[in-house]
Amino acid sequence: MATTGRLHRTLAWGDCDPAGIIYYPTYYRWMDAATWALVAQAGFPAARMRAEQFTLPLVDSQCEFLSSPTFGDECEVRSHVSRWGRSSFTVSHEVVLPGEERLLARGSESRVWCQYESGPGSALRGVRIPDEVRTALGAPAP
Amino acid sequence: MATTGRLHRTLAWGDCDPAGIIYYPTYYRWMDAATWALVAQAGFPAARMRAEQFTLPLVDSQCEFLSSPTFGDECEVRSHVSRWGRSSFTVSHEVVLPGEERLLARGSESRVWCQYESGPGSALRGVRIPDEVRTALGAPAP
Amino acid sequence: MATTGRLHRTLAWGDCDPAGIIYYPTYYRWMDAATWALVAQAGFPAARMRAEQFTLPLVDSQCEFLSSPTFGDECEVRSHVSRWGRSSFTVSHEVVLPGEERLLARGSESRVWCQYESGPGSALRGVRIPDEVRTALGAPAP
Amino acid sequence: MATTGRLHRTLAWGDCDPAGIIYYPTYYRWMDAATWALVAQAGFPAARMRAEQFTLPLVDSQCEFLSSPTFGDECEVRSHVSRWGRSSFTVSHEVVLPGEERLLARGSESRVWCQYESGPGSALRGVRIPDEVRTALGAPAP
Repeated sequence: MATTGRLHRTLAWGDCDPAGIIYYPTYYRWMDAATWALVAQAGFPAARMRAEQFTLPLVDSQCEFLSSPTFGDECEVRSHVSRWGRSSFTVSHEVVLPGEERLLARGSESRVWCQYESGPGSALRGVRIPDEVRTALGAPAP
Repeated sequence: MATTGRLHRTLAWGDCDPAGIIYYPTYYRWMDAATWALVAQAGFPAARMRAEQFTLPLVDSQCEFLSSPTFGDECEVRSHVSRWGRSSFTVSHEVVLPGEERLLARGSESRVWCQYESGPGSALRGVRIPDEVRTALGAPAP
Repeated sequence: MATTGRLHRTLAWGDCDPAGIIYYPTYYRWMDAATWALVAQAGFPAARMRAEQFTLPLVDSQCEFLSSPTFGDECEVRSHVSRWGRSSFTVSHEVVLPGEERLLARGSESRVWCQYESGPGSALRGVRIPDEVRTALGAPAP
Repeated sequence: MATTGRLHRTLAWGDCDPAGIIYYPTYYRWMDAATWALVAQAGFPAARMRAEQFTLPLVDSQCEFLSSPTFGDECEVRSHVSRWGRSSFTVSHEVVLPGEERLLARGSESRVWCQYESGPGSALRGVRIPDEVRTALGAPAP
């Protein structure tokens, strides 16, 4: 079964817009951070990603906005891998207000597990997602 | 025929990530600004939106990432309304490198034309999109 | 003695720049959030600030950058009020890597405790900082 | 005499906070972009900075906030080098509303002209600011 990562974010003053609600690109910032946290939880924290020259560029992303938090609300981003390819994968995210279990937003990101040819800025090529990641995040057996 | 808005953005240092390419939520910041610019072009600049207590909350958004600009690249966001409802509408955006006509990203936002009951922070209700906006942006005749 | 607030931030992918270090305006985002958290800790969380129509505009801010965290580093912002006026006050912040006690940045913000005349967007006037805040944050006796 | 760079920015929806005014770290984002634009104007655009492995880390920055723009205002950042060292320099910025010549903010950044030992992420060392930059930006004769 898919492992769920949980990332906590308190909606900051600067994450809101003049309507007093969340400025919507903030959700994508949170989803991006949630994916990196999920990968860290699977054994690939930032330092290891850097050492092994891995990065995770996006193919696409999308989000539905159901209800807005307001400044100071403590939100939770719940994330799991909902599609596994050889090198590509999709992370699905739900953003909720945990106390009342109110769903705020529901989104996803499609990414490719890539390796730099020679460090940041150089060309990228998709590589097979490490088995360690698949196992840790509950990918179905092949 | 649909009117196309054009917004120019030079990719800034702080809009990039450690991979040296665009940090993807930046595209959503640009699409948001492009929609407000399109509405301004249709006769509803920020000051009028504020005076008439209008705002444009989102239903959903999505984006495909085809090619990344790098720091210093001068990009153009081309936007038009691709779907007209009574109070809801969808804006489609293309982000291009104008010189070489390279398509960088293609996205959309669904929004609702809303009015505050009593100023920012108060309740919102969807209202009919003003005819002035429809006409200026080339909505098909009803 | 001054009460110290502590805010935790993991340096996110999108908070870094192409040099792979922190994009410096991120420190100001953190200091802003740290000040709101300190005020919340003193009895004025976001909901109460909104209900009593208070806000905290800035007079100035500054920061020295001593050492940069890298992506994934868990940082701590330590904040206290270092100057108390009638309605103005200065918050001093230190950003550290707690494990090794490495000082990353040292900054401050001068702000005014203000009240809206009639809600967000209306005129602001400076008011006396509530005694509850002074007491909670260790202001010297008058 | 010092050469003045000019950068234009329309205050975007997402650059504002729930008080309906500029979220203050936005000024630092603008000052950062203005410094890179000034250096580009002096013959070192992003591509050349990258090719010659130069970058411009900060020592400190500060800003006074005098008056806030509101959403949609067209602002101008006027920047010049106000202090020249061997490898360090200070850029002074004024942000104005050009029509009415209203001064919104006044800030500065101290930076060091640095070179990577071996690409982004590697160690940095301060190097002498290129003469081409000094001449273009009006540094006093030595």
